[in-house]
This record gives sequence, structure tokens and C-alpha cells, in this order.
Amino acid sequence: MSPGRYPEPTVDGVADWWTTSVTRIAPGEVEHRGVPVQDLIGTTDLVSAMWFLVRGDQPSPGEARLLEAALVASMDHGPQAPSIAIARMAMTCGVGINNAMASAVNTLGDSHGGAGQQCVELLNDVVAGSASAGSLREAADVVLTRWRSRSPYIPGFGHRFHPRDPRRDPLLGLVAKAKAEGTVDGAHLAAALEVESLLAEGRERPIPMNIDGATAVIYAELGFEPELSRGFFVLSRSVGILAHAWEERQGGRRNKGPIPPSILPTYRAPAPTERTGDA
Amino acid sequence: MSPGRYPEPTVDGVADWWTTSVTRIAPGEVEHRGVPVQDLIGTTDLVSAMWFLVRGDQPSPGEARLLEAALVASMDHGPQAPSIAIARMAMTCGVGINNAMASAVNTLGDSHGGAGQQCVELLNDVVAGSASAGSLREAADVVLTRWRSRSPYIPGFGHRFHPRDPRRDPLLGLVAKAKAEGTVDGAHLAAALEVESLLAEGRERPIPMNIDGATAVIYAELGFEPELSRGFFVLSRSVGILAHAWEERQGGRRNKGPIPPSILPTYRAPAPTERTGDA
Amino acid sequence: MSPGRYPEPTVDGVADWWTTSVTRIAPGEVEHRGVPVQDLIGTTDLVSAMWFLVRGDQPSPGEARLLEAALVASMDHGPQAPSIAIARMAMTCGVGINNAMASAVNTLGDSHGGAGQQCVELLNDVVAGSASAGSLREAADVVLTRWRSRSPYIPGFGHRFHPRDPRRDPLLGLVAKAKAEGTVDGAHLAAALEVESLLAEGRERPIPMNIDGATAVIYAELGFEPELSRGFFVLSRSVGILAHAWEERQGGRRNKGPIPPSILPTYRAPAPTERTGDA
Amino acid sequence: MSPGRYPEPTVDGVADWWTTSVTRIAPGEVEHRGVPVQDLIGTTDLVSAMWFLVRGDQPSPGEARLLEAALVASMDHGPQAPSIAIARMAMTCGVGINNAMASAVNTLGDSHGGAGQQCVELLNDVVAGSASAGSLREAADVVLTRWRSRSPYIPGFGHRFHPRDPRRDPLLGLVAKAKAEGTVDGAHLAAALEVESLLAEGRERPIPMNIDGATAVIYAELGFEPELSRGFFVLSRSVGILAHAWEERQGGRRNKGPIPPSILPTYRAPAPTERTGDA
Repeated sequence: MSPGRYPEPTVDGVADWWTTSVTRIAPGEVEHRGVPVQDLIGTTDLVSAMWFLVRGDQPSPGEARLLEAALVASMDHGPQAPSIAIARMAMTCGVGINNAMASAVNTLGDSHGGAGQQCVELLNDVVAGSASAGSLREAADVVLTRWRSRSPYIPGFGHRFHPRDPRRDPLLGLVAKAKAEGTVDGAHLAAALEVESLLAEGRERPIPMNIDGATAVIYAELGFEPELSRGFFVLSRSVGILAHAWEERQGGRRNKGPIPPSILPTYRAPAPTERTGDA
Repeated sequence: MSPGRYPEPTVDGVADWWTTSVTRIAPGEVEHRGVPVQDLIGTTDLVSAMWFLVRGDQPSPGEARLLEAALVASMDHGPQAPSIAIARMAMTCGVGINNAMASAVNTLGDSHGGAGQQCVELLNDVVAGSASAGSLREAADVVLTRWRSRSPYIPGFGHRFHPRDPRRDPLLGLVAKAKAEGTVDGAHLAAALEVESLLAEGRERPIPMNIDGATAVIYAELGFEPELSRGFFVLSRSVGILAHAWEERQGGRRNKGPIPPSILPTYRAPAPTERTGDA
Repeated sequence: MSPGRYPEPTVDGVADWWTTSVTRIAPGEVEHRGVPVQDLIGTTDLVSAMWFLVRGDQPSPGEARLLEAALVASMDHGPQAPSIAIARMAMTCGVGINNAMASAVNTLGDSHGGAGQQCVELLNDVVAGSASAGSLREAADVVLTRWRSRSPYIPGFGHRFHPRDPRRDPLLGLVAKAKAEGTVDGAHLAAALEVESLLAEGRERPIPMNIDGATAVIYAELGFEPELSRGFFVLSRSVGILAHAWEERQGGRRNKGPIPPSILPTYRAPAPTERTGDA
Repeated sequence: MSPGRYPEPTVDGVADWWTTSVTRIAPGEVEHRGVPVQDLIGTTDLVSAMWFLVRGDQPSPGEARLLEAALVASMDHGPQAPSIAIARMAMTCGVGINNAMASAVNTLGDSHGGAGQQCVELLNDVVAGSASAGSLREAADVVLTRWRSRSPYIPGFGHRFHPRDPRRDPLLGLVAKAKAEGTVDGAHLAAALEVESLLAEGRERPIPMNIDGATAVIYAELGFEPELSRGFFVLSRSVGILAHAWEERQGGRRNKGPIPPSILPTYRAPAPTERTGDA
């Protein structure tokens, strides 16, 4: 039963294959990271519980409130966001609400929300670089040049729709306040503002931080690794996805397409040379 | 371009196709159900914001705390839950964390978490029936008989692993307290306790409420429609899914199967009659 | 390590947990249902291999060709199908082509393609009923009455877009030919035509079989269980999903919404009474 | 309704937003790439139809047979493949067969099947490089060095389970035959054999091509772009996913975890220093 190149399997080895520090269960017991679940229920707020379960350490109240602001800010941006439209269409296809949410969450990829993850990386690079560079400005310049060589988009800055994202100011205001209170050290906020200022240079219209950038400042200040910040964005946007899925359910439509059925997608016939024979 | 049986399409009709009351955007503006997003950031806790975005009304602080307890209680049950194992395996296949979460969330179906939705229905049935029946007990008896005719499982009661689910008592305790404070009326709590008592009759080992049942009491007391309670369970379990996906990422394994590679699944050869020829 | 109520675990028990008759692997060996994979490669056509792997028996050439026709016929219906639109939008969000395909396949639910599964059930019911009923017509009438009591839609009949689905005639023609050749017995074809005729009675415009109905006839004639026929539909529609995902990739768009960004979804403000306070 | 920076929207613009060359529908008509669907049904084999729908050109019979061999070869590798285990577990959670297939397909990422896509890129690089390099060997050496600097894995070569993948020889044999018949030019086959030979140098145990490598040779010889070859792999593996989902359904298990319920995952308690407070 066991192929030759592996050690002899044991039941303990099977248990070890699924080793975890997140949750321990035993008959009548559920423990999260060493704490019985009944000690969390009714005593711990959701945001602190999320932080604790995922990271394993405890946030201070100030840290939890900063994370909470990021989570509240990213919940939804309406049906023009592909994930939201997908949730609504899926909901009309005769699947469960969990399935509709999954099809939607699945699309929160590198260019749809994933910009936050990349922006955390970018800010980490600037902060790390500023130690050796002469100044924060110099470090930001180096990092920007590197990112621009890879893509025309600087993650977390600029918005194709909002000249100035209304979520930028309140989020950055909370970070500034948290720095003043000693909750965070403000290094990533300073880095982000430096990048924003560099991007605006020589332009009539600036390229201000967007929601991905402003929440990236929070995640970075709180010490979230870049990919984990994407995970928290998924939790936040899942709320908007649920809100829209539920609204669509109440409308009762079946098999909703992307545009009204009275409009047919334009058909672009293949050029004759594209065809090499008959079917 | 427009097929005959539909009215002439208009741009307004296209805008109407995606009508929503959840979120309004305009350049520089994001509004959730009539409230500018900047008025929510930093002032509204996550649970109240979730409730507001999804349902459109405002919870009282007591209602929000009850919902919060349900969300904290259901976050995780470890890798033996299919959704958690799926999240962890997906994470080793070279996909994004959003993709791993989606594969997992997708499986929170009728028998994996969906029991909560069914239990809300069952409790609603008992409460509705108690108006016409002579007593709550009678109503519960009628409803139980009906459910038993469909399935051997009564959703929300009994657990294949826990003799008594450790999350039951703290959750029901909070509901009882909320009833005492006038936050909820307690009708669904009473219904659930009646069902639990009926199920225990004549048995040596009772069949106490499990996590799905105890949270169903909360969702039902708060007036969540059954399917929406499933949606909120998805939000809660997404936290555990993220915690495990992230833990697996840090382990760095590639293409993790369900059991160690040293063990091969048993192969059950087809009976000769099952084969009708050669391939 | 093992909770009390279960038997002592063994490594063999772990291997048995994943027992399968589909595939056996050993170092240097891959065997599908008893046949070495190298005996299938280059000798077996894809449709016969699909049938063999999934069902475990071998189709005759005539059976394979009938299944092939069903698979070719259902590949695509353009971007107004939710699954296709979802695949295309997902593709612009920075995820892999497998992820875009998954978000799309996920929506092939009870009302989007799942009608085929239900139609197989309906046809099975009519065929089974015709044994005891006086006539096929009587059996069809009984079954139709039962289905109508549950839903206004009779699965597999009528199309919101096509007055007559162009895929109906060629598919039914192939089934009739297969009956003439003794490949199938034609009982489900007869049942479907009887239902079609009953549905047309007293109506000016008939309600002809659609693609779901015509392929359901094939699946039912070939002895596929209803849910399995949905599985094969998923395989077929996955081809169209891939075609559209790939076309969208080549266009290079980022974060494609359901309608052009120049159009904003209509916002329906909540009625004043819906609001119960400030956020 | 239309935000300022976009051109005035029109209904034609909405139709154009969903422009496609894959499928045209009109009442009573379905046309794939200029061919009425009824001309494909019963006349075109599934593999040629797949190629035609996705790529838009027609394969020769020899090309279609080569693609068919790749599709038949990759269908399944048993429950130790994460995607297969996921499909089976999902199937027990009370979701549809399409949902179970989606959760599984979703995990065919960069390290689970995606190696084929990367191997096509690698082979393309070697072939392209051989024009300027002095020899194929030299080109292969340059490309291998570059890939090795990025990852310890050379995609398409070596297998953690099979010393020699049983699918390698029959697939490469078919490519060699196709080259002899003039169906393909054999450049990518030569490149792959050169890489294999380079990898074996100085080693006691060679690192032969695996299924991803052997099918990559076929996709590359047939001119499939790398990402598209992943798409076709998804179609192929979807068959195995369905076979296992269906087998699991017939077993009737509910909420199947990755290991028998008698085994609990090992709990690794956090080190004291990891904890920063009480929950």
C-alpha cells in the first residue's frame, strides 16, 4: 500500500499531516489557539476575534479599531465591480448563496482588490529602502522606478472612476491619529504620502491614494504580511457580495445576463483568412 | 440587434438592469444605503456595518452584540471540516488566497453549515404553528414529525463528534439575557428548547442543540430570513478558512493531498460483470 | 488522539477512507478502471474515454456518437448566458484561467443548465408511469400535472429567446436514427415527444423542446442518471466557457464590469420608513 | 447617470461591450464562428469541435488526434491529487455536482497542473533560442539555467511519485509519428528531449518528462499558447473530477473530512511567547 520511497506510514503520521495551531477539538471541547471558544463568545468583538484566530496574537483595542476601519471601508463598490455583478448573476442560476459568494470571492485577484496586497509590498519596500537610502524620498523614487518598469499601474494609487477616493481621507486620518496615540509608528503612512507626492509631481491632476492604497497603509502599519492583507480584504468585500446576492435573491430573477435580454452582444465575424476550412 | 419580442432597449434600461439600493457611486462619492461611506468609517463597528449593508436597517447595540456572538462562535472547527481541509489543500496548488477561500466557501452547502438555514426554517415553523396549536409542545411535535418524514437529521440538533457542543450554553445564555433586556422576544429560543426536550424524550443520551442550532436561534430571534442566516454563517466561517489557508501557506507545502503520500488510497477493482469489454 | 466513540484508527482504515474504483496508481503505473492508461492513449477517442472513466462500462460506437452529439450541441450560447459572462469578467480580474472557469462552472445550477437534469427525471417518470398507466399520453399528463404544481417551468421545454431551438431537430433526428439502428430503445424520445405535444395543446405557439430537453432525451436513452447528465453538461459547457475566457484574455481588458463604465447602475433610494436611524 | 470622463453611452456601445467572435445568436439561430450549430451536431467529433470553438481554426484529423491523446492522458491521477480529493469532499457537503466540480477545477493552479503551461513556455523559449544559439543543446542549457535561478522545479520534468511516468512514452511516440507524417514539425519534441537529456547528466537517476511535460510537447507542437494549454488541461482533468464526484455521490457519505473521523489532527500548541495576552 505504501510506495517505496516514503517512510512506513503510521496513524500518528496521518494526524501530523493535518497539524494545526489554529483549533483543537475534542469531544465537548473547541479551543482556538489555546483559548476555549466559550471564553471568546460574548466577550470578544468580531474584529479582535478575527485577528486572534488568523494571526495568533492579540490586538490592542487601538489596533483592532484600525483594522475595523479598513474592513468597514472596503465592503462594497456597487455592481460595476466584477465580483459584485458575478455574485448577483450567480444568485439567479439556481445555486446556494454560499456558491454565489464563492464565484464572486474567487475573482478578487491581482487586479481586482489584489492591488492592496501589492501596495503593502511596495510600502514595505520603501520603508526598508529608506534605512539605507539618504531619504524617504530617495527610497520612494527607487521603488517607484522599479515598479514602473514592470507595469503601468502603481498599486494603490489612482482610480479610473474617482478623481479622489472618498475613503482616502478618513482612513489616513485614523492612521495619523493612531500614530499620535502610539498605536502605530507611522512609517508606512509616511512612505505612502511620499509616493503620492512623487506621483503628483509635474502633473496637473494628482494620482491620490485609492481604497486599496489607504487600507494597505493600515495593513502595513499593523504588520500584516502582504498576502494576508488580501485575505482580510476578501473578508471585507464578502459583506458587500452577500448584500448584493441577497438583494438579487429578493428580486427573484432567473438566469440574469450581464445586459438586458433585449440587447444582443455584437458579433464580430472572423476575417476570411481566419477560417481554414468548413466545420 | 434587438430580438423581436423585447421592448426597444435604451441606455436607461441598461442602467435599470443593475438597479440596487445597496450602494450608490458617483465620481468622488460612495454611499451605502443613503449614508456616505466616510460617515461609517471609524464610527461604526464591523458587525453593525455588516447588518446595515446587508439588511438596510440599523441594529440596536443589543442586537449587534447578539449577532456578533453568533459570528464569533462559528468561525472554525478545525481541519476535519471539509471546507477547512479544502482551503488548506487549495492553498498548496499555486492559486491565490482568494481562490483557496472560494473553493472552501463554496462547500458550505445544505449539509455543511446549511443546517443553520434549515433550523431557522424549523424554528419559524414551530413559532408560527404555536399560534394555532394548543401549546408550543404540540406545535413542536407536529413540525418534528414533518421534518422526520423527510430526513433522519433534525437540523441544528445533535453532533456526530460532540456529546454536548461547548458553544451551545454560552450562546443560549446570551439569548436569554437579551430576552430579559427586551432586545428579543424569546419565542424562537422557547421553540428550540421545546424541540430539544422532545428529542430527548425516551432516550438515555439527549440530542442537544449544536452550533448550527444555537446560532439559528439567534438569527431567528433577530428576524433574519433563513437563507440570509446561511450568508452570515459564510462570513463567519470565512474567518476560519482564512486562518487555515494562511497557516498552510506559511508551511510552504506543494500539492498537499488529503493523506500523506506514503499511503495510497485503496483500489477496489470492478467486479468482472461490471466490465463489458476492453478499452 | 482518537475520540472515544470511534474504532481504533489504522493506516489501512486511512487508505480505505479514500477507496476508489476509478484509478489505481503505483510507482510507474496509472490504471483507470482496470485498464493501464497507456492502453487508452492513442487508441480510445475522448468521448468513449469520458464514458468509461465516469461510468465504468464501455459504450458501443453508436452510444458514444450519441453522447458526442449532446456534448457538441451544448458547448456555448454566447455572453448573455450568466456563466459565460462570469468567465469573461473573472478573466479580467487577475486570476488564472482555471479560476475563471471555476467561477463560471459553479453557476451551472438548477436554473442554468440544471434543467437538463430535471428533464431526465421527468422523462424517467413518464416512462416508468407508462407501464401502469393506460397509455403514454396518460402517463405524461399525470407527470406534467405533478411538475406544474411545483413550478411554472417545465424543464427542457420552451425557450425565452428561441421560438424553436435550432439544436432540437438535429439532436432528435440522431436519437431516432439510433433507435432505428437498435442503439437505444426510444422510450424516452417517445415520452419527450408526448410531453411536447401535450404542452402544445390549445396554444397558438407551441412550447418545443429546448437544448436541455433534447440532450436530456439522449442522456436518458443512454441510461445516465439525472445528476450525472448535469455533470456531462458541465463538461460540455466548459468548452464554451474556455473559448470565451480565452477571447477575453486576448482583449486584455482589466476589471471588466457587466456594462460599460460610462453607465452607472440605477440607485433606488430606500424609502424613509426603511431607515431606522443614522449609521 | 454617466460620469463625466466617459463618452455618452449608447445602446450600441452596450452591445459592443460584449463583442464576441465565438457565438452569434438570433431567435432560432445559434452560430459558432460562422457555422450554424446544426452543421456541427452529428458531423464533428468533440475534439475538433473544442479546437474550433476555442481557437477559431479547423484542426486537420492528425492534429485533432494528437490533441485527443493529450486530453485522454491527463484525465485523472486518483484521490491523492488535491483537486480530486476536493471534488469528493465537496460532493458530500450538500452542494450540486457543478459546485463540487468548480471547487476542484479552481485548484488546477500554477503547481497543480499549471506546470504544463510553464513547460510550454520553456519549450517555446528553447525553440526560439535555438535559432540564435549555436545548437539546440546550447539553447536548452541557457533556458534551463534561467529557469533554475527562479525555482528548484523544472516544469514538466520529474515526478514525486513515478520514477518514470507511464504516460510519457505513448504520448511522445504519437508526437514522433505525427512528425513522420508531417502533421507537426517536431521542434518542440526535440527541445523537450534535449532538456531531458541535460537534466539527466551526471545523475544516477534521470528526471524524465512527466505528464505535464509530455502533454506540453503536444500543445506546443500544435501551436497552443501556454495559457490556453492550461485551459485544455482543465477540460481534461474535469473528466476525472466528475468521475470521482460521481463515485462519491453514490457512496452517500455526508461531510467527508480528509481523514477518518477517528483521527484528530495533531494540535501544536503555540509557544508561550507567541501569546501576548488573554482572549
